[in-house]
Amino acid sequence: MNPDQMNMVKPGGTIGILGGGQLGRMLALAAARLGIDAHIYCPEENCPASHVSAGFSCAAYDDERRLSAFAGAVDAITTEFENIPADTARFLAERKPVFPSAQALEIAQDRVDEKAFINRQGIDTAPWRRVDTFDDLNEALSDIGPEGVLKTRRLGYDGKGQARIQSLEDAAAAFATMNNAPAVLEGFIDFQREISVIVARGQDGEIRCYDPGENRHAEGILRETTVPANISDKTRDSALAIAGQLAKALDYVGVMGVEMFVMRDGSLVVNEIAPRVHNTGHWTIEGCAISQFEQHIRAVCGLPLGSPARHSDAVMTNLIGDDVDAWPTLLAAPGTALHLYGKGESRPGRKMGHATRLL
Amino acid sequence: MNPDQMNMVKPGGTIGILGGGQLGRMLALAAARLGIDAHIYCPEENCPASHVSAGFSCAAYDDERRLSAFAGAVDAITTEFENIPADTARFLAERKPVFPSAQALEIAQDRVDEKAFINRQGIDTAPWRRVDTFDDLNEALSDIGPEGVLKTRRLGYDGKGQARIQSLEDAAAAFATMNNAPAVLEGFIDFQREISVIVARGQDGEIRCYDPGENRHAEGILRETTVPANISDKTRDSALAIAGQLAKALDYVGVMGVEMFVMRDGSLVVNEIAPRVHNTGHWTIEGCAISQFEQHIRAVCGLPLGSPARHSDAVMTNLIGDDVDAWPTLLAAPGTALHLYGKGESRPGRKMGHATRLL
Repeated sequence: MNPDQMNMVKPGGTIGILGGGQLGRMLALAAARLGIDAHIYCPEENCPASHVSAGFSCAAYDDERRLSAFAGAVDAITTEFENIPADTARFLAERKPVFPSAQALEIAQDRVDEKAFINRQGIDTAPWRRVDTFDDLNEALSDIGPEGVLKTRRLGYDGKGQARIQSLEDAAAAFATMNNAPAVLEGFIDFQREISVIVARGQDGEIRCYDPGENRHAEGILRETTVPANISDKTRDSALAIAGQLAKALDYVGVMGVEMFVMRDGSLVVNEIAPRVHNTGHWTIEGCAISQFEQHIRAVCGLPLGSPARHSDAVMTNLIGDDVDAWPTLLAAPGTALHLYGKGESRPGRKMGHATRLL
Repeated sequence: MNPDQMNMVKPGGTIGILGGGQLGRMLALAAARLGIDAHIYCPEENCPASHVSAGFSCAAYDDERRLSAFAGAVDAITTEFENIPADTARFLAERKPVFPSAQALEIAQDRVDEKAFINRQGIDTAPWRRVDTFDDLNEALSDIGPEGVLKTRRLGYDGKGQARIQSLEDAAAAFATMNNAPAVLEGFIDFQREISVIVARGQDGEIRCYDPGENRHAEGILRETTVPANISDKTRDSALAIAGQLAKALDYVGVMGVEMFVMRDGSLVVNEIAPRVHNTGHWTIEGCAISQFEQHIRAVCGLPLGSPARHSDAVMTNLIGDDVDAWPTLLAAPGTALHLYGKGESRPGRKMGHATRLL
């Protein structure tokens, strides 16, 4: 995009954010540093982001009257989560600049479209097959199985909407958990480690990547990200190149997270794209002068991207469910920054906060 | 104070902040990280801090009905500026914990009381004399002059309420600018550099100091703070000891800034105490895992203090008046974090934002 055509939100302006969870909250805090007000649009009353934002519209994502008023109150719009209905993004885009685009969101919302898109760029994914029927599943398992993970094509996150298959006997039970929703079988791959790249792309096409983090998941939920990842320079360079290539091919504007598996030979397989700020990038708040949250705000507002240089090594640990009860210990731990999201009640699997320890 | 007697505001609680300027704004942002809501009390509509806070009471500092309601809505109270009326602090302290105490604020509000307090601790200040009458001034100038600065005892900041005296001929004009307000003459001292220590003291008496910053002022307003200051280890240790001693002697809770002059022999002379987070500590946002703002919130909330360890050298530059027009250049500068305070209009001498460059 020509800089003259860029949609610039200047300090003093207002950024609209769809979604009011912790990512929206940290985006609003980052916007505030730049003198930009945040206006949250979220169906849930008392959501974490609303407590730190100048504006809050509590309404459904298909309420056109409220969406219209929201668009009228802000200068540009972004989202904190990938499952915003694409129709909502398109409705808003007729009124105000929306980044990332509805088109980029749609690709990332469907695991089949996403994997097909990644493969079209010449980038590897795990082997995969569409699964609409039980016959499809059996055929897919004989093709790429017998081990794999069956996932709904849409709306899964943090291990939800997923069923592991370890042998053909698991197929029927796994299929049943899908409730006849369109699904995809991902074949098992024997990876060495999981990493992710947080990539930012500006309205002018400029691309900036943070150093890859190395991730540890448990029960489908991220537990810990460590930077730097224990990978070779060559693998690091490939990871950054892949993330940049995907952002460019999507004509993406904003920050996105690209999860990858590192194979034993150092080659990379893309697991998924998250078209938003990403849990594996939370370490950037303390580890860099400009965090992923501010970087996203800069991109969406058409402002120059900041340097993604990392000044410290770091370990970010998620506080999930009862983990948050350790807050007094974490507050007293040297070199540790505790982030709590202002969610009232801790429930199993709920992300309540995180702690970043500088190394 | 015994830990059992500590007034603890836990995550999920609300901190009340008197004053809604940039310091209140950055305090509110720091509280948000810890899952603590901010409620701003400020007489000015649309003040910077109100845009990032869950609650806002727009009322005068002597409005007892509104102060009462404010106290009822929060768990503890602090202030972003030293000139809050001590009566307001006392009124609130009957209802909720207030830190720093009205007593500590009162000492810092009066330049004579402040200097007398500092000297009572055996700590040097510039020579000074009370000036209530023109005769007092002439006597003071013959005692400690003829060079010095005449300052109102109360309510001066950023060079306001001050008049330089370079010879006896300046005395009458300087005295006239005081408008018969009680004043103090500070004698000229030939210092080598200006430094400041940001010291935090917890409810349990624990003291943590950030590394001294070296400050450059112009026209009575801070322009730049650099860390580390160019001082010997011995001077650094003395500076930290002085700051800690003053915080303890005031039974202070929270963060305060202690400005000092470094003399040519390396000895230290205290210039003033600011009983609040301090402009010369803004570099801690990027330079440390725990900023002065979060440290203050922790102290006031009775939470463990964080490590003041500095991971990077830094230069903080204030954006005063039109300086803020350079924001596009500053956004694009490598390793630079720009902070804008959300004040609409730039006026000469008004602090509009700051930029911290990591070195």
